[in-house]
Amino acid sequence: MNYSPSRMSADPATFSASQAAALLKTKQLSCEELVRACLARIAARDPVVKAWLSLDPDYVIARARALDKLPPTGALHGLPWGVKDVIDTFDYPTTQNSPIYDQLKIGRDAACVGVVRGSGALILGKTDTVEFASSGRKALSTNPYNPAHTPGGSSSGSGAAVGDYQVPLAFGTQTGGSHIRPASFNGIYGHKPTWGRVSREGVRMSSMTLDTIGWYGRSVDDLILVGIVFRIAEDTTPITVRGLRIGLCRSPVWHAIEPGGVAALDSAAAKLSAAGAIIEELVLPEPFTRMHAAHAAIMAGEGAASFLPEYVNAYEKLAQPLRDRVENSTGSTPEQWLQGYALADRCRVEFDALFGPALDVVLTPSSPGEAPEGLHTTGNAIFNSMWTLLHGPNVGIPSGRGPKNLPVGVTLVGPRMSDSRLLAIAKALAPIIDTDEAGRLSQLWG
Amino acid sequence: MNYSPSRMSADPATFSASQAAALLKTKQLSCEELVRACLARIAARDPVVKAWLSLDPDYVIARARALDKLPPTGALHGLPWGVKDVIDTFDYPTTQNSPIYDQLKIGRDAACVGVVRGSGALILGKTDTVEFASSGRKALSTNPYNPAHTPGGSSSGSGAAVGDYQVPLAFGTQTGGSHIRPASFNGIYGHKPTWGRVSREGVRMSSMTLDTIGWYGRSVDDLILVGIVFRIAEDTTPITVRGLRIGLCRSPVWHAIEPGGVAALDSAAAKLSAAGAIIEELVLPEPFTRMHAAHAAIMAGEGAASFLPEYVNAYEKLAQPLRDRVENSTGSTPEQWLQGYALADRCRVEFDALFGPALDVVLTPSSPGEAPEGLHTTGNAIFNSMWTLLHGPNVGIPSGRGPKNLPVGVTLVGPRMSDSRLLAIAKALAPIIDTDEAGRLSQLWG
Repeated sequence: MNYSPSRMSADPATFSASQAAALLKTKQLSCEELVRACLARIAARDPVVKAWLSLDPDYVIARARALDKLPPTGALHGLPWGVKDVIDTFDYPTTQNSPIYDQLKIGRDAACVGVVRGSGALILGKTDTVEFASSGRKALSTNPYNPAHTPGGSSSGSGAAVGDYQVPLAFGTQTGGSHIRPASFNGIYGHKPTWGRVSREGVRMSSMTLDTIGWYGRSVDDLILVGIVFRIAEDTTPITVRGLRIGLCRSPVWHAIEPGGVAALDSAAAKLSAAGAIIEELVLPEPFTRMHAAHAAIMAGEGAASFLPEYVNAYEKLAQPLRDRVENSTGSTPEQWLQGYALADRCRVEFDALFGPALDVVLTPSSPGEAPEGLHTTGNAIFNSMWTLLHGPNVGIPSGRGPKNLPVGVTLVGPRMSDSRLLAIAKALAPIIDTDEAGRLSQLWG
Repeated sequence: MNYSPSRMSADPATFSASQAAALLKTKQLSCEELVRACLARIAARDPVVKAWLSLDPDYVIARARALDKLPPTGALHGLPWGVKDVIDTFDYPTTQNSPIYDQLKIGRDAACVGVVRGSGALILGKTDTVEFASSGRKALSTNPYNPAHTPGGSSSGSGAAVGDYQVPLAFGTQTGGSHIRPASFNGIYGHKPTWGRVSREGVRMSSMTLDTIGWYGRSVDDLILVGIVFRIAEDTTPITVRGLRIGLCRSPVWHAIEPGGVAALDSAAAKLSAAGAIIEELVLPEPFTRMHAAHAAIMAGEGAASFLPEYVNAYEKLAQPLRDRVENSTGSTPEQWLQGYALADRCRVEFDALFGPALDVVLTPSSPGEAPEGLHTTGNAIFNSMWTLLHGPNVGIPSGRGPKNLPVGVTLVGPRMSDSRLLAIAKALAPIIDTDEAGRLSQLWG
């Protein structure tokens, strides 16, 4: 966290969003300069990282110039954004990485895009994704730290682009672990807000109960900057680490952990303990052990409705796993689906009630470990799906490297509606947990 | 229900969807004839009823001719549909009755439109709606039975168009009472399916927990025809009315009932009792009395996120009630919002558990009474909002007239996921409840 950009020496593409915002505001940096730096980085790296599905350099430079002529009123004025290509933008196509929607332009911004664009953001382009952010065709994107490895998914391109210093901010979505897992694999920060606090309108729907919009940045300040425009980061009063009560939750699926995940979690806990935080193991009671199955039952039930339009209209172009969902190939029953709802309802209330004098925040894995090798997989959502179904806010923070020297993250979790406080806690804890920021920059930029 | 269309004598615009489907299938009727009949009815009545926001006669006739050349494979082949203008279609604009989106074309069908179009439906046009299906500018549509009265809302144009024999089928949406209430006011049938069983993708979102797609027809068979293509009417085995256990639920908001609502409910109950059904008063226990407030808290909380894009980008063109929602003018707190979730979670499980040997179906008002006078109001959703939040299926059925000779409906309610069985029950009960079908036709058509 000692990295301090100098206007004269550093490449603007390496600036975090909050650093760039400060320079843009004081006119030490123009939007055009920032966008050109991002475009140069993309030009150099795209043949390997392949994060983008749509990007028009001339168009975005023209928009940057237009923004440079306006007074910087919005909090995101001039900041370039990547948008996962299951999210509509008025200017770029929304392909959903499906041959059914190849190059289809929608002409209206999704709600989340509208909010950031209306706050001054510059939409740089659309990022690659797993087909429909669900299943089927994978993104072509690779992990910036090793192109033989996945950047995770389904928010593959957004994770890789922010991780690779191609764009400071990007939207992802999460139904299982599609937002927080790529944060882990690409050494970046991610915020998955409380369900219901950010509109999902204009975003491909695969599960009404689970789908959640999130955003990536390269610091907690970046996440807060965005949270402010969504009105969920109103009060991020500084938090004292000493005495902060942190529940270390290895989660009911700890059997799936890998060495990189163990190291990330244990090193974060050890550093926080050394800084004066009170770390206690949090073992969630019995009903939580059934949350993973509840998540699967809800995704199966709601997914059958979600892919019916493509099944009816474009069966031949729909990937087999999505046909299977419409056909309910897992034999999921309405009773299992309703039991999933009931269990989630109960666990949400029980989980939220844990917070108070005995618990400030939960620390838990973001992924089993490092990004797996190969682009046939995007890794395993097993450490994310329960938190998605619990609907509370999650913040992903980088926490060192795994055995293959790839980044691994950890997740902070709060009760529903506590986004402001969770971001404030993350701001206090991130400098302690994430001591690899300069290492990431020098490796990718050096 | 004794009205039986004859190909030679009746105007095709008066055919119900299921009647027309049978004639289309056997080529006794062409799609072009049916569409031309609808267009003629619209031309005659639109100056008064004003149900449509977008409708291109030449375009739909061309599409009808194209459908007439195809083998009728889909269950909805050749059936004209109205689409509430908060739902995207690839061919017509989606204005949401907002000056912000005037004439904006989206270029992609909403999920529900894709499913019916892929099943052979012909999208006739877009119907008028309350701004964003929420609040603000009202539809211009009038009640087909008396243009001085509202057709209800927010699905104003869809309800009026189906009621006025301008189109046999239409989509509506419900967040409070926007689908079932217009069914009541326009003398038509409506199905609001179990939450989660029909995708809302491509539909204006105002509340993630409440928004529900529904459809209108002029018989239960019409609702079943559509339910089949959405795969929620798989088994509609005939139901025996004698011995059927019906819970007569005056609901916790009975204080708001009007004479027309009392007559509709009591006459339905009396007829069903005379037909051998077992009617028992169902008084819902204490927690249900708080559902109306829970609905308001959830709508306030989730609505703040939903209208933020327009608030940021087009404040001057956004109606004051929607600005108020972003600004949380009611002072709704996150705690109230979460308490609303918890109460709804509890009541859903408790309500579903009522069904079994002691209860087959619930009978309850669809609206306080007849459509109120004036277009400054769309009536009161008070008898609908609890059922929306309970997420179970509702079927609206006409049940006679009120003191001003306007139609009034009643609602059948089942537990979540029971759409097939509820439709089967509705099919058995509707001929007993609704004895005014010929009266409606002769009044509007005569």
